[in-house]
Amino acid sequence: MSLPIRLVLMRPRNAENLGAAARAMKNCGLAEWTWVHPEAEDLAPARRLAVHAEDVLEASGRADSLDAAVADCVWVVGTSSRKVEGKRRLSPRAVAEELVRRAVQGPVALVFGDERSGLTNAEVERCHDLSAVPTAPEQPSINLAQAVLLYAYEIRMASLADAPPPPAPLPVAATDTELTQVESALEAALVSGGFLVDANARGRSALRELFAPLRRSRLTHKEARLWLAALHTLAKRLR
Amino acid sequence: MSLPIRLVLMRPRNAENLGAAARAMKNCGLAEWTWVHPEAEDLAPARRLAVHAEDVLEASGRADSLDAAVADCVWVVGTSSRKVEGKRRLSPRAVAEELVRRAVQGPVALVFGDERSGLTNAEVERCHDLSAVPTAPEQPSINLAQAVLLYAYEIRMASLADAPPPPAPLPVAATDTELTQVESALEAALVSGGFLVDANARGRSALRELFAPLRRSRLTHKEARLWLAALHTLAKRLR
Repeated sequence: MSLPIRLVLMRPRNAENLGAAARAMKNCGLAEWTWVHPEAEDLAPARRLAVHAEDVLEASGRADSLDAAVADCVWVVGTSSRKVEGKRRLSPRAVAEELVRRAVQGPVALVFGDERSGLTNAEVERCHDLSAVPTAPEQPSINLAQAVLLYAYEIRMASLADAPPPPAPLPVAATDTELTQVESALEAALVSGGFLVDANARGRSALRELFAPLRRSRLTHKEARLWLAALHTLAKRLR
Repeated sequence: MSLPIRLVLMRPRNAENLGAAARAMKNCGLAEWTWVHPEAEDLAPARRLAVHAEDVLEASGRADSLDAAVADCVWVVGTSSRKVEGKRRLSPRAVAEELVRRAVQGPVALVFGDERSGLTNAEVERCHDLSAVPTAPEQPSINLAQAVLLYAYEIRMASLADAPPPPAPLPVAATDTELTQVESALEAALVSGGFLVDANARGRSALRELFAPLRRSRLTHKEARLWLAALHTLAKRLR
């Protein structure tokens, strides 16, 4: 039984990395992954490196955007060493434990940037929390397949850990799509209310800042519905 | 400063594995390793994979036997999934913690077998204790460079455990008074907007539920000011 934890690879360039990543995933009991705009064309080197994990390689999903890849996810963690206010920076171990715990609520995703430049600023912003491998300062950058292996290994270790007394059951979390809906409704109300000027860079940044606490509080499904209802009512009155 | 922990590779066959292992070691702050009867002859592929860890690659020691490679060591752990009476079978995490602890006493070694058949019976016997990565039963075998990475990573995590990296500085938090102000402003906007009926028990409960995520996200001072400004603007328009 593989764990319902999705790895999302943005623009993977190197087929050998895909093969090695597939092998590492299977070593660690993972099977679900999505490639967004893969740039690796010839998959023969991937097959060569996959060694008995060809099934994982063949079963990779495809998506046209990060949004699409994580739309149904209740938690989305980006791998990046950047610091972004309002987002937690978790160790791979802490991420793995939380992924295993939250996977009970719904799909969860761990997002990897491309080999050349990692996640873009917009992608980092889009993720709910961030994580990076605490590499040595003399050699900070690690290979994509190695990063996948380390996270997959930590996920396996977390899933094997002696089941501790179950924490209080988590409420049903809002999906990423619901979060986006709340953000759009907030924007619509603030634009109608004259607080934001539509499509203005300063406005976008204020909206992001207003929405940040709602994003990091990990809205429940019920709260998201209530915010949507409240914001729709306000926007209608303000129109 | 690299850790005084030695990796010993028995008969490594594949130069790419040596390069990837060198990179992984440097990522994790390790620099000391010994190759016993390496079978990889052309090291060009190793250099290609080493990426900024050429120094680790060049500094590899050579020994003619496992005995010679670990002669000065106070603890020698073999990586093997075999069970041998009288030897502990430790997880990579437990090995890493003990290696870091024992490295204070003198050199310690972690021994890897060759890519084809691992450690021989005599070599397993020679080690003081054993360890294996707890891979998924569907795909138990892992690549040599991947095994080196996982152990090196656990060693790094164990060496960091004593001094965890300082967390990112926390932004200035909103005071409780500011939180209350935001909650009141939210209430005023929702009452003016017709979403809540003032002083109604059902309304109070909806307000509490809407405000709950903002409360638990631990608003920063800056976010609280921005929410106040936005909500005041909306309320004025709605009045």
